Amino acid sequence: MNRFRLQLEYDGGPYVGWQRQDNGASIQQALEEAVRAFCGEITSAVAAGRTDAGVHALGQVVHLDIAKQCSPETLRDALNFHLKPQPIAVLEATVADSDFHARFSALGRAYRYRIVNRRAPLTIDHGRAWWVANTLDAQAMAAAAQCLVGRHDFTSFRSSICQAASPVKTLDRLDVARDGEEIRIEAEARSFLHHQVRNIVGSLKLVGEGRWVTEDLAAALAARDRRAAGPTAPPAGLYLSGVRY
Amino acid sequence: MNRFRLQLEYDGGPYVGWQRQDNGASIQQALEEAVRAFCGEITSAVAAGRTDAGVHALGQVVHLDIAKQCSPETLRDALNFHLKPQPIAVLEATVADSDFHARFSALGRAYRYRIVNRRAPLTIDHGRAWWVANTLDAQAMAAAAQCLVGRHDFTSFRSSICQAASPVKTLDRLDVARDGEEIRIEAEARSFLHHQVRNIVGSLKLVGEGRWVTEDLAAALAARDRRAAGPTAPPAGLYLSGVRY
Repeated sequence: MNRFRLQLEYDGGPYVGWQRQDNGASIQQALEEAVRAFCGEITSAVAAGRTDAGVHALGQVVHLDIAKQCSPETLRDALNFHLKPQPIAVLEATVADSDFHARFSALGRAYRYRIVNRRAPLTIDHGRAWWVANTLDAQAMAAAAQCLVGRHDFTSFRSSICQAASPVKTLDRLDVARDGEEIRIEAEARSFLHHQVRNIVGSLKLVGEGRWVTEDLAAALAARDRRAAGPTAPPAGLYLSGVRY
Repeated sequence: MNRFRLQLEYDGGPYVGWQRQDNGASIQQALEEAVRAFCGEITSAVAAGRTDAGVHALGQVVHLDIAKQCSPETLRDALNFHLKPQPIAVLEATVADSDFHARFSALGRAYRYRIVNRRAPLTIDHGRAWWVANTLDAQAMAAAAQCLVGRHDFTSFRSSICQAASPVKTLDRLDVARDGEEIRIEAEARSFLHHQVRNIVGSLKLVGEGRWVTEDLAAALAARDRRAAGPTAPPAGLYLSGVRY
């Protein structure tokens, strides 16, 4: 068997998420079916981040094993051919060592969250960002965000169905910056809890609206109780932007 | 009657274009129906640029007259409410003089064309850019583009159904710049011929591929014959980015 590492970009809108599920189309299934259409092999694709329904990827990393001998360029082009017309693309394919594991070998994951902060609803960015009509103070959000950086018990920002062994994670970066009507949040950590970024963004929005100050965000973290933090931000604004090995 | 000036953003993908037509939904019709839903009045909306099917707008300008007394902010919000869930938004509304005319008062129009130049097909940008897989030399495109700037007979870049009185136009700006895998073309003129930007982009692609040099582009212009220039670039990459008064 030959192990390949793939870098994927996708629009998560039409999917139930990365992982195969009974209730709809998944990115994993689409990719595995493209492999089968290419070489007839049944493979199991493993991803660095199991993105949720509606969450996008700019740089998802996946590994898979196939017996067929082919160059990574041939595999990339063949998978892209068979993935058409679905909004999933293989940006890059490389040969990987047999002990490379897309999920367990990852040293860091980066997510981007896009808020479009303006009065008018979204048109071209519909499904690609979170539309927030009330004016947000991005500087206040950026300053408050720093209280979440570091090693903490993130129970307050963790989905109730999260399967992680521990709620303690180290958040390496949580930057908030405005560029015109867009507010971008960049988060980096070795790994994240389920819904962690979206729950953090939902709380940062409260800060941006002036309903919370930094101390409220710090208190929500300290409470170790999901009910103490803000609502979950919608999936359409979230992008898995990269994985570090 | 009160005249209002509106700035519109839209995803042209689902529409036959700005103008009302028998064969499908238009942006003009959607806007006029939103006005009627708001105040019961039948109005005729006039746009600065009659964008074609599939062409987007970031800053289309429209004027329309209504008898109802209301603030521009109320009109903007009401139209956005009634336009939902269509991908058309009123970014801004202002009171206009009765002699303001969105089309005839315009002093300049700016279009942007987005090419995504990479091996992998588009996912998140599908319908929002032209995917070109062959590597393009953006510097060669930028240099060649300058031979089209200025006052010329643009017959070679004019659609056969163009209704303009004269094929002579003054192209004020035609910039080409690469930002990573994206190539952006910015064109500005007082007015454009039908398909002029898309036909220019189709020819610039030939330059980017190395199939044409600057002299070929200049010869195509001098030929004053549509058959001498390159093919029409697809509508999905084109955006009416702004109008100057």
